[in-house]
Amino acid sequence: MARIITLTTDFGLRDPYQGAMKGAILSINPEAGLIDITHLIAPGNILEGAFVLFESCGFFPRGTIHLGVVDPGVGGERRPILLETEDCIFVGPDNGLFSIAAKGKVRRVIHLTKKEYFRSEVSSTFHGRDIFGPVAAHLSLGADPGVLGEETGSFNEVELPATEKRGGAIYGAVIYIDSFGNLITNISKVDALGLGGVLEAEINGFSISGLKRTYCDVKKGAPVMLIGSSDFLEIAVSSGRASTELKAKVGDKVLLRPLKR
Amino acid sequence: MARIITLTTDFGLRDPYQGAMKGAILSINPEAGLIDITHLIAPGNILEGAFVLFESCGFFPRGTIHLGVVDPGVGGERRPILLETEDCIFVGPDNGLFSIAAKGKVRRVIHLTKKEYFRSEVSSTFHGRDIFGPVAAHLSLGADPGVLGEETGSFNEVELPATEKRGGAIYGAVIYIDSFGNLITNISKVDALGLGGVLEAEINGFSISGLKRTYCDVKKGAPVMLIGSSDFLEIAVSSGRASTELKAKVGDKVLLRPLKR
Amino acid sequence: MARIITLTTDFGLRDPYQGAMKGAILSINPEAGLIDITHLIAPGNILEGAFVLFESCGFFPRGTIHLGVVDPGVGGERRPILLETEDCIFVGPDNGLFSIAAKGKVRRVIHLTKKEYFRSEVSSTFHGRDIFGPVAAHLSLGADPGVLGEETGSFNEVELPATEKRGGAIYGAVIYIDSFGNLITNISKVDALGLGGVLEAEINGFSISGLKRTYCDVKKGAPVMLIGSSDFLEIAVSSGRASTELKAKVGDKVLLRPLKR
Repeated sequence: MARIITLTTDFGLRDPYQGAMKGAILSINPEAGLIDITHLIAPGNILEGAFVLFESCGFFPRGTIHLGVVDPGVGGERRPILLETEDCIFVGPDNGLFSIAAKGKVRRVIHLTKKEYFRSEVSSTFHGRDIFGPVAAHLSLGADPGVLGEETGSFNEVELPATEKRGGAIYGAVIYIDSFGNLITNISKVDALGLGGVLEAEINGFSISGLKRTYCDVKKGAPVMLIGSSDFLEIAVSSGRASTELKAKVGDKVLLRPLKR
Repeated sequence: MARIITLTTDFGLRDPYQGAMKGAILSINPEAGLIDITHLIAPGNILEGAFVLFESCGFFPRGTIHLGVVDPGVGGERRPILLETEDCIFVGPDNGLFSIAAKGKVRRVIHLTKKEYFRSEVSSTFHGRDIFGPVAAHLSLGADPGVLGEETGSFNEVELPATEKRGGAIYGAVIYIDSFGNLITNISKVDALGLGGVLEAEINGFSISGLKRTYCDVKKGAPVMLIGSSDFLEIAVSSGRASTELKAKVGDKVLLRPLKR
Repeated sequence: MARIITLTTDFGLRDPYQGAMKGAILSINPEAGLIDITHLIAPGNILEGAFVLFESCGFFPRGTIHLGVVDPGVGGERRPILLETEDCIFVGPDNGLFSIAAKGKVRRVIHLTKKEYFRSEVSSTFHGRDIFGPVAAHLSLGADPGVLGEETGSFNEVELPATEKRGGAIYGAVIYIDSFGNLITNISKVDALGLGGVLEAEINGFSISGLKRTYCDVKKGAPVMLIGSSDFLEIAVSSGRASTELKAKVGDKVLLRPLKR
C-alpha cells in the first residue's frame, strides 16, 4: 500500500518550491501518495499552519506522514524534528507547527540529525526540499523514526489563545477566518453548551442570539451562531460573509453568555 | 486499479476543509486516486459549479466518481444524493450541481440515507467530510450505489440560461469568464454555424466580425470570436483579456447574426 | 510502478481546463501519477513558465514526464514537440517553454505528428487536453518517443536575461519574484562568489552589504542578500517582503560588487 504524505506549507501555488519538494520526495519514493492540505498558509504564520494541521490531520488514516513547512527560521537555530504520535508522524521545523495537533498524544520526539536521509546537498534556505521532504520519503518507505536522528525530550509549542470564564460568561476570540468569511472562535462546544439556556454572543458591537444548527436556520443576510464542523463556536452570516458584515478579523474578542431575559 | 474520485468544491485552497475531506476519503480507501478539479468555485455558486463539472467530467475514464460539494443548504432540507449515469457517478447535494453534466444520461438516482456509509459522527455544516466523501470512498471500494440509500425518481436541476433565435439572429449571453478573461457564451457551435455566412457578434456595444479558428488569427489586442474547446461560441482578445477590454461580466447579452453587407 | 507526469500550466485553478486535461490523461492511463507543479504561470508568460520548470524539474526521478502548457500560440504555426533529455521528457508547445530546463541535455527532439496518439477530436484552442495530455499519457504507458512523430533537428529557445561583468562588478537583474516577495536574480552563485571579498548589492537605490547564509542572519525588517536554494543571488527582507520594501519588480537592475572600504 502506498503510504500517504500530506503537505502543509506557506510556499504558495505559483512558485517552483512545492514542485521541487514533491520531486525530492518522489525521487526517493516514487510510490508515495502525496496529498496537498494547503500551500497557502500566510507566509511565516506558524499559528495559522498549526491550526490548519490541527483541523485536518485527524481525518487521515493511521500512520499518515504529515509534512509541514512553515519555517521562517530556516537555516537558523531551530531544529528539524519528527513527532510520532498515537496516530501519525509529523515532520518539519521545531517551531510549534505541530504542537496543537500533537498535544497530549506524543510518543517520541526525534531531532533529525542523520544526514544520510537528507538530500546530498542541503541549502540553508529550503529545508522542505532538502531535509523534511527526503525524511518523509524515507519514512514512507518504512524507515523507523529512531534511525533518523536522536531522541529528544521536548519540542517547541504554540498555543491557541485561551478563553476566560468569568461571571457566567465566556470571553473568547476569533482564531481563524475561513474562505467563506466564517469566524471560528476558540470557544469549544463543551464550554458553550455548558453555559446552558439560550445563548447570546457579542462581537464588535453586534449581538447574535440563539445557537443554530445550520447556516440556513436564519434568514439570508442575518448573522448566525453555531457549533462548527470542528466543534468550536462559529459565527457566520447566512449566504454572506461574516468577516465583512461584522467587520471582524483574527483576534477580535467574542463574548458568549446566556441570554438575559 | 485505483478508482478515481474527482473533487469539485467551493472550499478554497487555504482552509483545512479540503484536507479534512481528503483524509475522510483516504481513511476508508487509502488507495483512492484523488484528482482536484477545482476548489475555487465562487462560494455557494451552484450554477458555476455545475458548469465546471459539465466542462470537465466528460474527459475522465468511465466509472469515475465525481464528488461535488457546493452546498449552501448544508444541514437543511436538501437531500444528499448520488446520480449514476451511463459514464460515471456523481455524489453530493441535490441542489442542481450535477444536473447539467448528467442531463439526459441518468440511470439511477439514489437518496443517500444509509448512515453506515457515513462518518460515525455527522456534523450539520460539513457533509463533504461526513457524508459525501465517505460515500465516494465506499463507491471507490466497489459498493453498489443501490446499497447506499433509496432509489428516488427525481433530482433538482439548474439550467444554463437559454438562447433565443429571432429574425435570423441568436440572442445569447456570457455564461462564464475564465482565468484568461475569455468570455464563454451559451451559443452552441451547432447553432452558430447554422446561421451560415460570415458571422458578426455584438456585446456591450462592441462588434466582432468573422468566426476565427484560433486566438492568434487576429492582431494582438484585437477581439476575436471562435468556437471554444467546449463547442460554445467564445469571445476573446488576442494576447489580452476580453473581460477587461469589452467590459464584460457573466450575464451580459451577446447577439450573433450573419454580417450585413 | 506508476509513471509520474508533472503539470505546469497557465490554466489557473478555478476553470475546468486543468480538470479536463487530467481527465484526458487518465482516460488513457488511469494509473498515471499526476503531480501539479503549478497552474498559476501568468497567462501566456513563457519565460516565467520556463523558469519554474527549470527550478523544479531537476528534483524529480529519472524518466519523469513533464507536461508544460503555456501556449499563447495554440492552434497556430508553432509545433507540438517532445524533448527527450538525459533525465526526463518534456511535452508541450515548441515556444521555448522547456529550453532553459533542457539546455545542454537534449538527446532527441520529436515533432508530434502522429494523430493516433492525440484525442480523436482536436480543438484549435486546447492542445493541452487534445494533444499534449494524451501524448504524455501514452509515454507514461511506455510508448517510445520515436513513434509519436518525426525527429527534428531543432527547437525554439528562450533565454534568461544575461548578466554582464564590467570593471570588477556584475550587472544583473531580478528575473523572478516569489510568493514571499523574495527577489531572485540572474547572478549565479559561481559568479557571485568569484568576485571575492565582502559583497555589496545595489537595487533601486538601496544597498545591501555582506552575503548571508539565511533569511534570519539580519534583524527583522532589514534587507538580506544570500545565495538562494537554486544557486542564484537572492535579495530578501527578513520577515518581510523585499518586493514591497525595495519597490522591486521583474527586470529591475541589480549591481553586485566587492564592498569599497
